[in-house]
Parts: sequence; C-alpha cells; structure tokens
Amino acid sequence: IISKLPQTGTTIFTVMSALANEVGAINLSQGFPDFDTSPELIKLVNTAMKKGHNQYAPMPGVQSLRERIAEKTEKLYGAVYNPDTEITITAGGTQAIFTAITAVINPNDEVIIFEPAFDCYAPAIKLMGGIVKSLELEPPDYRIPWDMVKRLINSKTRMIILNSPHNPTATILHKEDIDELSALVKNQDILILSDEVYEHLIYDGETHHSMARYPELQQRSFIVASFGKPFHATGWKVGYCMAPAFLMSEFRKIHQFLVFSVNAPLQYAIAAYLKDENTYLSLPEFFEKKRDYFRKGLEQTKFKLLPCSGSYFQSVTFDDITNEKDSDFSLRLTKEFGVAAIPTSAFYTKGTDHHVLRFCFAKRQETLDKAVERLLKI
Amino acid sequence: IISKLPQTGTTIFTVMSALANEVGAINLSQGFPDFDTSPELIKLVNTAMKKGHNQYAPMPGVQSLRERIAEKTEKLYGAVYNPDTEITITAGGTQAIFTAITAVINPNDEVIIFEPAFDCYAPAIKLMGGIVKSLELEPPDYRIPWDMVKRLINSKTRMIILNSPHNPTATILHKEDIDELSALVKNQDILILSDEVYEHLIYDGETHHSMARYPELQQRSFIVASFGKPFHATGWKVGYCMAPAFLMSEFRKIHQFLVFSVNAPLQYAIAAYLKDENTYLSLPEFFEKKRDYFRKGLEQTKFKLLPCSGSYFQSVTFDDITNEKDSDFSLRLTKEFGVAAIPTSAFYTKGTDHHVLRFCFAKRQETLDKAVERLLKI
Ligand SMILES: CSCCC(=O)C(=O)O
Ligand SMILES: CSCCC(=O)C(=O)O
Repeated sequence: IISKLPQTGTTIFTVMSALANEVGAINLSQGFPDFDTSPELIKLVNTAMKKGHNQYAPMPGVQSLRERIAEKTEKLYGAVYNPDTEITITAGGTQAIFTAITAVINPNDEVIIFEPAFDCYAPAIKLMGGIVKSLELEPPDYRIPWDMVKRLINSKTRMIILNSPHNPTATILHKEDIDELSALVKNQDILILSDEVYEHLIYDGETHHSMARYPELQQRSFIVASFGKPFHATGWKVGYCMAPAFLMSEFRKIHQFLVFSVNAPLQYAIAAYLKDENTYLSLPEFFEKKRDYFRKGLEQTKFKLLPCSGSYFQSVTFDDITNEKDSDFSLRLTKEFGVAAIPTSAFYTKGTDHHVLRFCFAKRQETLDKAVERLLKI
Repeated sequence: IISKLPQTGTTIFTVMSALANEVGAINLSQGFPDFDTSPELIKLVNTAMKKGHNQYAPMPGVQSLRERIAEKTEKLYGAVYNPDTEITITAGGTQAIFTAITAVINPNDEVIIFEPAFDCYAPAIKLMGGIVKSLELEPPDYRIPWDMVKRLINSKTRMIILNSPHNPTATILHKEDIDELSALVKNQDILILSDEVYEHLIYDGETHHSMARYPELQQRSFIVASFGKPFHATGWKVGYCMAPAFLMSEFRKIHQFLVFSVNAPLQYAIAAYLKDENTYLSLPEFFEKKRDYFRKGLEQTKFKLLPCSGSYFQSVTFDDITNEKDSDFSLRLTKEFGVAAIPTSAFYTKGTDHHVLRFCFAKRQETLDKAVERLLKI
C-alpha cells in the first residue's frame, strides 16, 4: 500500500510523552495541565448526562453553546457571528483545522504557513492536493517578515494560516502584523485560517488580535478555538470554528460527513459554564503567575529564556550547555535529567535546529519546582 | 467560493428531525433512541472525570478500551487484533469511515458502493478525488448482484464498501455473499471498508458475518463499529476502527492530524462497562422485542412491511395509500399525521424512488404505540 503521508511518523507529542512515562520523567513536553478541570464543570457534565442529553447533538452543535460563543466573541472582539449559520462546534481544535482546510483547499492551491508550525497544518493541506509554502521564522522574536510573505503570494495563493498566541513559540501577533496582513490580502482572493486556541492565554496586559476584531480580515477567516486549553480539559475534545456564512456553509458540508456531530453532554455543560464570564476572564492572571514562577526558576539555570507573551509554553535556548541538536538534547534531558520537553526543530518541515526547547508550564507549583530542581543540575 | 461538494445540502437526518420538532411529530426518522443510556454507564463516566481522566487520551485511544475491544472481537468473531497496532478509537463511526477513506483513496481510484447507502460514503470518496461506482439494490430483498459487481471491477478498483446490518434497509449479509465476495477479491488489490455499527442488532438468531470472521477478507478490511448505537448514547460519539497493521498505520497518520484523540473519560467508562459482556450480548433480544412489537402494530395499518433482519430500522412500502414520491409522502406524513420517517430515495444518489419509508424503532413502547395509532388513521 502506497502511503499518502509517507514522511509522517508518530507525532512528537506522542513520542515525548511516551518516553517521559517510560523513564518516569516530569512531562513538560505535550501541552496539557497536570491539575484537573473545575469540579463545577464536571458536575455540569454529569447533570447533562443525567438529564438525558445523550443522543445526537444537532450537526452544527448545541444551540445554547453556539449562542454563548457568539456572546463571548462579541463582548471580547466586537464581532457579531450568527450562531445559526456562522459557528460550528467541533471535536477539538484539530478537527476544526482539518475541516476548514478540507472545505476550501483544492489541488494545486497554495497555502502559506509559518514555521515553526503546529504539526497538523501541512498534512491536511497535502491530503487535499494543496501546496505548502512555508516561511521559516527565527528566534528570539519569530517575527513574520511580511515583505517575504508578499513575494510568496501569487494567483494560486488560496490561504494563509496564522496562529496567535503561537504554539510552540509563545509569541503573539501585534497591531503592525495585522496592518501588514490587511494590506496584503486586500482585493486578493485569499482566505485566512486563524488558529486561536490559546486566545485566553495572553500576558502582560497585551491584546489578543483575533481576526474577529478586523472586519476586512474577519470576512475571509476561519477562526478556530478550543475549550480544552482554557478549561484544563484537553481530553474532552470540544472546540469550535467561526466563519462568515459563505465559508461556514462549506465547512459544515465537510463536518457533517467527517464527524456529523460532537459529544452532546459536554456541549450542554460548557454552555452552562460559559454563563459566568469569569471562567475565561480569570485565565490570563492564572497562567501569567505560572509563567512568572517558572521563568524565575529557569533564570537560575544555564538555559536562556526566550520571550513568552502567550500560550502555556516557555521556550529556552541551551548554547551554554551543549552543542547537541535540540532533538538529541531533548531525549538526553528526558532520560538523564528527568525532564521532558519538545525540541522546536520538530515544528520545522526541514527540521531546522535553532537549539530551542519548549516547556509546558500548565503544571502545579510543585511540578514546576521539581522540574527546575532537576534542570539546575545541568 | 467554489464548493467542493456542490450537490450537498443538509443531511436528510437533520432535515427530518428539524421538521419533526417543528410540527411536534413523533420522530421515527433519525436513528436514535428516545430512552436513555444506562445509569451505570453514566456513573462510570462521572467516575472517570472525578478520577481526573480529563487530559488527552493517547492518540490511538485508551489502552484498556482497545484491549476490551480486542477481547470482544476474538470472542465473537474469532479474530485476533493487536490493540497496540490494529485498533483505533474514533469520534464515532462517521469519523472512522471518513478517516479510512482518506487514508487509502487517491485521485481516480474507484470505490464500489451499494445504494441505498448511508450518506457519508460518497462525499468522502469524492473529496479524495476518488470515483464512486454505485450499484443500486432493490426492495424487498436488496440482495447484492455479485455478477454485476464483478463487471464493475477493473484495475482502478481500490475499495468496496459494505454495511451489515444495513442502514437503511435492515438487511444483512449472508454466507453466500461472503463466498461471492471472497471469490471476487481473491488475488486482487482491493480493500474493504465494512461499516458494522449495527453488529449487535441482529435478529432471529442470524449470524453477523463480520469481515473479522474470514481471514482472507479480514486482512484487507477496515472494520468500523460504534458504541453510540449499542449503548443508547448516539450523542457521545465514540466508535472505533479495526484493521491489519499495514492499513491501521495509514489510518492513524490521518487520525492524528484529523482529530488527534478522542474524549478520554468516555473511553475509560466504556472500557469498564465492556467488562460485563451482557452489556452487548443482551442487545439482540432487547431490540428484537421492539422490532416484533412495532411490526405487529404496523401490520394493522395500510403499510406493507419489508423484512427486518438487523439494525433498528423498519422499512415499509405504501402503494395501497398513495402514488406520491416517498420524499413528498414523508413530509406529508410528518405534517398531517404526526409521524416522521426517512424516505429511502434520499439514500440513492439519483434519488431512485421505490416508495419506501424507513422508521426507527429504537423507541419506548408508548412511543411506538402512539406512532402506530397515528399511522392507523391513514
Ligand atoms: C494535539 S497533542 C499536543 C498538544 C499541544 O497542543 C502541544 O503540545 O502543542
Ligand atoms: C449521523 S445522523 C443519522 C443517524 C443514523 O444513523 C440514521 O438515522 O441513519
């Protein structure tokens, strides 16, 4: 059998988490918390099940959840989405991304992505016969060189994929980026896929420049978000996609044949939970404290810290420690020092190695303490 | 924007359920029960959440669930699947079907399907650039004309999609079908996608001819099953796919980028629930009683019953009532008589109308009573 994704092995997340478990390392690799979701939210799921919300949810998602999302989006970003035609609940952010790409990418369409990039973008594009045009960004700032983006654009350019706050680099888009992007796509037939799953994890009082804020961008954007990250329940797999109706109707055509609908009791529970806006407004402070605490610890080690403006990842360089490739060093760090991290080279198609490791700080204070203690031994 | 699925509207399930709700009809259209899942199973989900199983499940699924599935499959069908490499948990049967097709169908590959067919097969094939070769089956028996299948096969034939027990027709594959199929694919490079989501809903002591029973078929098959149907929880969206390792490795490459993983607490709960084999061994009797009860009721009406050997659907013809198209009559039946059904013509690409309606009998006795009462008025 001829593989359609011959270059694909197991994702780095699975590989590193498995190794961490095997050797008993502290797992700061795959992005998930080691503390639990809210007991109140669990109670709401249980209530939904007991109330009998156990049969098919409507194909686009439970109405009340779509309404809560529309309200939240209008309040935070000033954009009005119609829950009936412009919001669809998905089985996590990944399913939303795959579905959006499947809905609009045709053979030979070009899609611009920026690397390091979350590893599900390129395979989805390739499966649709699309062509990945990737631009490599560089530490410490990973700024998008818009003049180079401009040179990549031609009549075949169909989509640009953005991700802010960014995984793995923890950078965010700034107003200048939005201005450059707006100028670039103006009068062009280019769509945007905006991966905003870390929208609520943004620090230092910075603004999340959601595509929803900018009508000229919003009208051509699929915006993807998730409840797994903000609500500390990455294993529940509930996310959503928002897009103007002309795009959402195409998205739903794929969605209905790809998964049909999403877990019903969880949707009812999350809808009820979202009624209290504090559930998400409290998140920047909650995670900023963890970021600051972890950074203070890391500053005592031989690692050099990269900036962290959003997401729950902290990247570091290690030139004072070793010349190893980050992929090799991450394995050794896990096995010899008992701390697992993701090598950022795994997020570059070409494996470009800037000697950067990514740690997840969505962990209890004791876990961060123990990790720093081990990293101090290097 | 040019649609990739220009012919696709909203699925008939959504259309009919929406109409049923709107006019307050008894909804025997979309296939889901109007009684609830087991309180014990709900309790197990709650326990899993409280135990903290709320972060990412492993990409292929929770280990204990894959082990329970392997045990069940060996016990029922005698096939040994390796849970590590040959079983993957999916977000429902539909996601498994979409993923299997995406994993192996390339542009211009031909896929043979039998109509009436569940409506997600053809769009997935088309999205991959594949060519749908459909053979229309006819009531009352909907037998597969294997000589005609043979004539469809050529060097481009990549896959045959089977579905037994069959939705919407409630027919099942017989040993003769298996023999014909085996002879046909022998020494041919043809895969099988076997949609067996109704595997446990089979009546009159008949055998479910799972592809897993026949090594020469098993070795080329993706077998898709679901927990939503057997456990009366269609809204939970947990299913699975089994395939030999050389196929499953390709399936997982797609799965990991399409959805990454599936709801964790539900997987733990279902794994625990499956320890008691009575949870599924009791199902044929449970649903056969409903089938017999509903058929007895329908026999008093002007509808003519088609055979029902499996699934939870009962089809009828209505030539003694009207000459209308089944699509028109199903609307009138819903609006004027208050009972919603699915017109079987919706499952034929060409809309072929044999004047057949499909009723779902996964309903409480009172519901079936009320429905029959209304149908008697025709
Ligand atoms: C989809 S598993 C990986 C989780 C994650 O978002 C990450 O670690 O980057
Ligand atoms: C995927 S919604 C339809 C449910 C079902 O299996 C059916 O009604 O045929």
